Amino acid sequence: MLEGSAFNSSADCRKGAVHSKGFVLAAILALSPHARADEGMWTFDAFPSDKVGGKYGFAPTAEWLDRVRLSSARMAEGCSASLVSPHGLVMFNHHCAQDCIEQLSVPARDLLAHGFWASRPADERKCPAMEIDQLTELSDVTDRVNHALEGSAGAAYEDARRRIYAQIENECAGADEAVRCEVVSLYHGGRYGLYRFRRYPDVRLVFAPELAIASFGGDPDNFMFPRYDLDVTFVRVYENGRPAHTPHYFRWSTGGGKEGELTFVPGNPGSTSRDWTVSQLEYERDVFLPERLLWLAELRGQLTEFQRRGTHERLVSSSLLLEVENSLKARRGGLEALVDRDFFAGRVGAEEALRAQVADHPELAQAVGDAWESIAAALERKRAIHRRLDYVGYGKAFASDLFRAAQHLVRAAEERTKENGARLEEYSDARLPELRAHLLSGAPVHKDLEILTLTYSLTKMREALGPDDPFVRKVLGKRSPRELATALVDGTRLTTDRAGLALRRSLWEQGKKAIDASTDPMITLARRIDSDARALRRHNEDDISPAIKKGTERIARARFALQETNAYPDATFTPRLSYGAIEGYRENGKAVEPFTTIGGAFERATARDPFRLPPSWKRAERRLDRRTPLNFCTTNDIVGGNSGSPVINRDGEIVGLIFDGNIQSLGGDYGFDASVNRAVAVDSRAILEALERIYDARRLVAELGEARAAVP
Amino acid sequence: MLEGSAFNSSADCRKGAVHSKGFVLAAILALSPHARADEGMWTFDAFPSDKVGGKYGFAPTAEWLDRVRLSSARMAEGCSASLVSPHGLVMFNHHCAQDCIEQLSVPARDLLAHGFWASRPADERKCPAMEIDQLTELSDVTDRVNHALEGSAGAAYEDARRRIYAQIENECAGADEAVRCEVVSLYHGGRYGLYRFRRYPDVRLVFAPELAIASFGGDPDNFMFPRYDLDVTFVRVYENGRPAHTPHYFRWSTGGGKEGELTFVPGNPGSTSRDWTVSQLEYERDVFLPERLLWLAELRGQLTEFQRRGTHERLVSSSLLLEVENSLKARRGGLEALVDRDFFAGRVGAEEALRAQVADHPELAQAVGDAWESIAAALERKRAIHRRLDYVGYGKAFASDLFRAAQHLVRAAEERTKENGARLEEYSDARLPELRAHLLSGAPVHKDLEILTLTYSLTKMREALGPDDPFVRKVLGKRSPRELATALVDGTRLTTDRAGLALRRSLWEQGKKAIDASTDPMITLARRIDSDARALRRHNEDDISPAIKKGTERIARARFALQETNAYPDATFTPRLSYGAIEGYRENGKAVEPFTTIGGAFERATARDPFRLPPSWKRAERRLDRRTPLNFCTTNDIVGGNSGSPVINRDGEIVGLIFDGNIQSLGGDYGFDASVNRAVAVDSRAILEALERIYDARRLVAELGEARAAVP
Repeated sequence: MLEGSAFNSSADCRKGAVHSKGFVLAAILALSPHARADEGMWTFDAFPSDKVGGKYGFAPTAEWLDRVRLSSARMAEGCSASLVSPHGLVMFNHHCAQDCIEQLSVPARDLLAHGFWASRPADERKCPAMEIDQLTELSDVTDRVNHALEGSAGAAYEDARRRIYAQIENECAGADEAVRCEVVSLYHGGRYGLYRFRRYPDVRLVFAPELAIASFGGDPDNFMFPRYDLDVTFVRVYENGRPAHTPHYFRWSTGGGKEGELTFVPGNPGSTSRDWTVSQLEYERDVFLPERLLWLAELRGQLTEFQRRGTHERLVSSSLLLEVENSLKARRGGLEALVDRDFFAGRVGAEEALRAQVADHPELAQAVGDAWESIAAALERKRAIHRRLDYVGYGKAFASDLFRAAQHLVRAAEERTKENGARLEEYSDARLPELRAHLLSGAPVHKDLEILTLTYSLTKMREALGPDDPFVRKVLGKRSPRELATALVDGTRLTTDRAGLALRRSLWEQGKKAIDASTDPMITLARRIDSDARALRRHNEDDISPAIKKGTERIARARFALQETNAYPDATFTPRLSYGAIEGYRENGKAVEPFTTIGGAFERATARDPFRLPPSWKRAERRLDRRTPLNFCTTNDIVGGNSGSPVINRDGEIVGLIFDGNIQSLGGDYGFDASVNRAVAVDSRAILEALERIYDARRLVAELGEARAAVP
Repeated sequence: MLEGSAFNSSADCRKGAVHSKGFVLAAILALSPHARADEGMWTFDAFPSDKVGGKYGFAPTAEWLDRVRLSSARMAEGCSASLVSPHGLVMFNHHCAQDCIEQLSVPARDLLAHGFWASRPADERKCPAMEIDQLTELSDVTDRVNHALEGSAGAAYEDARRRIYAQIENECAGADEAVRCEVVSLYHGGRYGLYRFRRYPDVRLVFAPELAIASFGGDPDNFMFPRYDLDVTFVRVYENGRPAHTPHYFRWSTGGGKEGELTFVPGNPGSTSRDWTVSQLEYERDVFLPERLLWLAELRGQLTEFQRRGTHERLVSSSLLLEVENSLKARRGGLEALVDRDFFAGRVGAEEALRAQVADHPELAQAVGDAWESIAAALERKRAIHRRLDYVGYGKAFASDLFRAAQHLVRAAEERTKENGARLEEYSDARLPELRAHLLSGAPVHKDLEILTLTYSLTKMREALGPDDPFVRKVLGKRSPRELATALVDGTRLTTDRAGLALRRSLWEQGKKAIDASTDPMITLARRIDSDARALRRHNEDDISPAIKKGTERIARARFALQETNAYPDATFTPRLSYGAIEGYRENGKAVEPFTTIGGAFERATARDPFRLPPSWKRAERRLDRRTPLNFCTTNDIVGGNSGSPVINRDGEIVGLIFDGNIQSLGGDYGFDASVNRAVAVDSRAILEALERIYDARRLVAELGEARAAVP
């Protein structure tokens, strides 16, 4: 399944590496004659309607685009979603809701195994830590940001950027906790957008199928096509304890899509790197990806064996294991793309071509200066310290929800004593409400799993920095990683039960003095390591990151001057719209058809996980129309973060639900090959068929029917 | 600790890629002004005595070299060793003996935890599956091999090579099961050597310390220096049920070594790649190492959690976990070297320089032809099928000792119907005795661990090839990997208890007809997949591997024509001798002293694994001389396979025991940097001190004393 942008954050340290769209096209064109076709993750205010109209005979109007944007949503944690009724009903993927489903499960009622259906409104159950956001407004703040950044470089540049972002976001959100505002750099600072979201922090689970059918085929089938998954979940957003009124929503297509039909996918692709320099791609290939993959692989091994210990262990770690496996497979696909000699040679060639073009224009050459060299030099500096940066600076050593809660409390107390613009970004006034809600959410924490992950990360820290490293000694002392992890997790009172939440609330409210006086072991640890962590982070943010940002900005401007500007910016986990068509492809000389059917799932089933159909499906087998399309694939350009996006037709009706890409699409972070990259979706007809004939979810079917009938 | 060559075999598919010494020097010289100093893994018949004499004032004579060679030994499974008394006493590393120590352990007497000491001769315990080999003769068979290979290419070349090897080895070993003969290609077929070994298959454990001190610091300290390990074990080789008479052995130095002193290390370095082409290094960096590392990392994760289940689980999996962790760290170090931009650029530059030189000599250019291109093209073909080659062709899908036994039985039955030269190499007459001994050794097999590893490898096979792959379907059918693994392991009767060994023996003796009639599930599986596996292996051995061999051979000859031939061949797990000196180095601007002491171990100790000293050490603390040197480092050029090598002085006396290299030495597979690469050894004085004052091993001390006193 697609990887949400949430998994790309902090420890990855990738935020610093901004990038834009453009000269990858040359490289991609060399790979495939179909390239350019349907490629692109377009912003709503620069959608290429004419181009779509020319190819497909339908050109979205501004009104159509507004309607689609307002009916789309996202999960704050990193998935896309859609509103599908006027009563706050939201559809997205089961794999995006799995944290919530796991949190609401108890051994006696395992909702992952058995699914969930609220047959009465009162049965809808609050997800402890889920937030749905809807983009209500977007505006251009390019001039204002550029003015603030003018003439600065290095640490001063980074300070100025942080200040102006915080200022704009603060003005936008004000004191309204129901609003989230984000300044986003597009085209490497070629443009800056201000995105204003309506926050829905009260989200309740309405329907979820069994994990066995939501991710039928499990990890073996993940990123594969043909595919047979019902990876759907419905939740409802509430306001003041009642279903929210959501006038903008997608109607439901019962007819569904057909081969060759034009499709649109609104969503929030997380992050792409299609215009990175060769030195950035080398860093990714040589340093970032091997480090990340090895971390994930070993953790996967531990979780696999942990799961075998018993029902409790399986229950509390399924969601994490799924995330790890998914990430592992996705990153592995990324590495495959980067070690492909032709692919990489194409990228090298494209960079050489651009540099030659720049050299031909003296004024451009002067403006670009040593941008490529300075990016490469910054990355060399980063190579030398990347492990320390990750483990110490960005907290990779402490893979524990309880530690993160402690760290947030410690840092928020410190940061809130500063003026808004001078804080660490994530503690700006505009971000505090969400952070506080997250801390006080009460999402359960499982101590044995916490000990496992914290032991793991402490062990990895010792491996990465060496047992004699002063920071390692400061953290571990004479204790083993497991001993320390156990003492911290068992000793902290910052739990998520009633008493723990009360303590968190009181520490949040009392601020720095209470934090300084606390003897809680997690708080104590977070306090003790804070100056080490901040110093490293600052080093990155003052030295390495601005050099890369400035460099890419200069290259991007030169590219703009040389090439058409009719291009989309690299993905940034903000709302985008892609277009394409339902279309198969060829693989190893054989045609892959674009649709699978419910009957196909029964044929593929064995009696063993992960190819075991749930009992509900087997009971309903005779009632089902086996020809009903179950999954399909399209040429839409999507990446991680698009999970949960609706697939809509030209009438803006839902015909499917994105949940994956095929294996070929995994190089999509670095380049799009339209001949074989495919988005994979659940068919709207299968969702209705299953709700009606397997789950007997009449209330939900009626609500979708209402959505079908209504004219928005 | 150093990785034995055994871990580099089969699944790695590296055998095909031969290579030689030469132009790496240019690259290495660019890295360090000290390079060339002390570099080299020399064959005994081409040792640069003059050079050593010039630098250190001591030039080994032919007689000295013979004596050293005859006193050295190796473990057939992949470690080096030395004879240290006239009564068959052999010294090597604890980590090389760990399989045996684990096999002799039972929960009530865990020899890993508590160590082992046979205070009476009758207490010496037979290692179920260990063989010690001693090199008795080496001769040159270059002309004979070249004659047989003349004019052939592709599959014919490979066939001719296999035939002439089998023929020579067979003539050499004859029907004498106590002899092992190996033809070895040196300098890429610039020379072929015939090595004749005396086999000692009856090996008995004499002394082993506790794991806690043998690998004090565990994985965190592995490949680190300063270091504090007593990684030593003594075994004795027996003949006809009595200690073997071994007239050649190393005397013991009680004085020990001192800083700056000349040291020699005889041993069997496993395999190096210092003269690979850039395309070979790219394959290693992009394909082989990521694949291998990810396999090891996930397996490590599973084993770590498996160990936590209980004493039995810890006991049966410690040796495998150690091997996995060691290999993981070593390979990781290799990858670090290859992704170092300067290092790789150096290799690229060296290749370009050599190609330019070749181009300047028309006759050389013609002889080399398209060697670089044809190697690169063969590796491109390999990239396309490498997973299938590994999993199907070389059996990576079936990580189970029981399966391997079944496969050997199936294949030996088939191969023995063919004439010697036409067989798969490992079933040639010269190799059969060892194979049979291995099959009938009775080394215990632990079903739960077998199920874990087989489940793992089957799962990885499905991941690598996809669930719809015909081979995957053929193997799994509708069963899950765990289900199939459990059925196979629980169902097979090819165990290593009395009944299982009897069955193995009878199948071995009755041959093909009995095998064809067997309904044992492992035999059945091995039979069913054999044609798939052979077809792939043949494809590799007929198409890919000869292209690489021929190409490297042509390049090597050109290099010989251009450069001095006074160079050592890349390592091949055959006896070599390196020279150097006891010397520290600088790291991060700080001096690292060459010696550590017993006192240092006490200072480093915590009360937690892996920094927990065993009770025997704590009890003896007051009796010990804390200033006794414990470990030291030297400039000797060693790699995996050298584990267990003695460190000797100019008098041929033992001053230490190699057990590791420092972290900087891990790039040694691809190039040697004499300024920081260090071999790490246990000091002979610490061994004596511990035997006397901690373990009270008087009989052993007396025997070493006798070795000390005797004049060989």
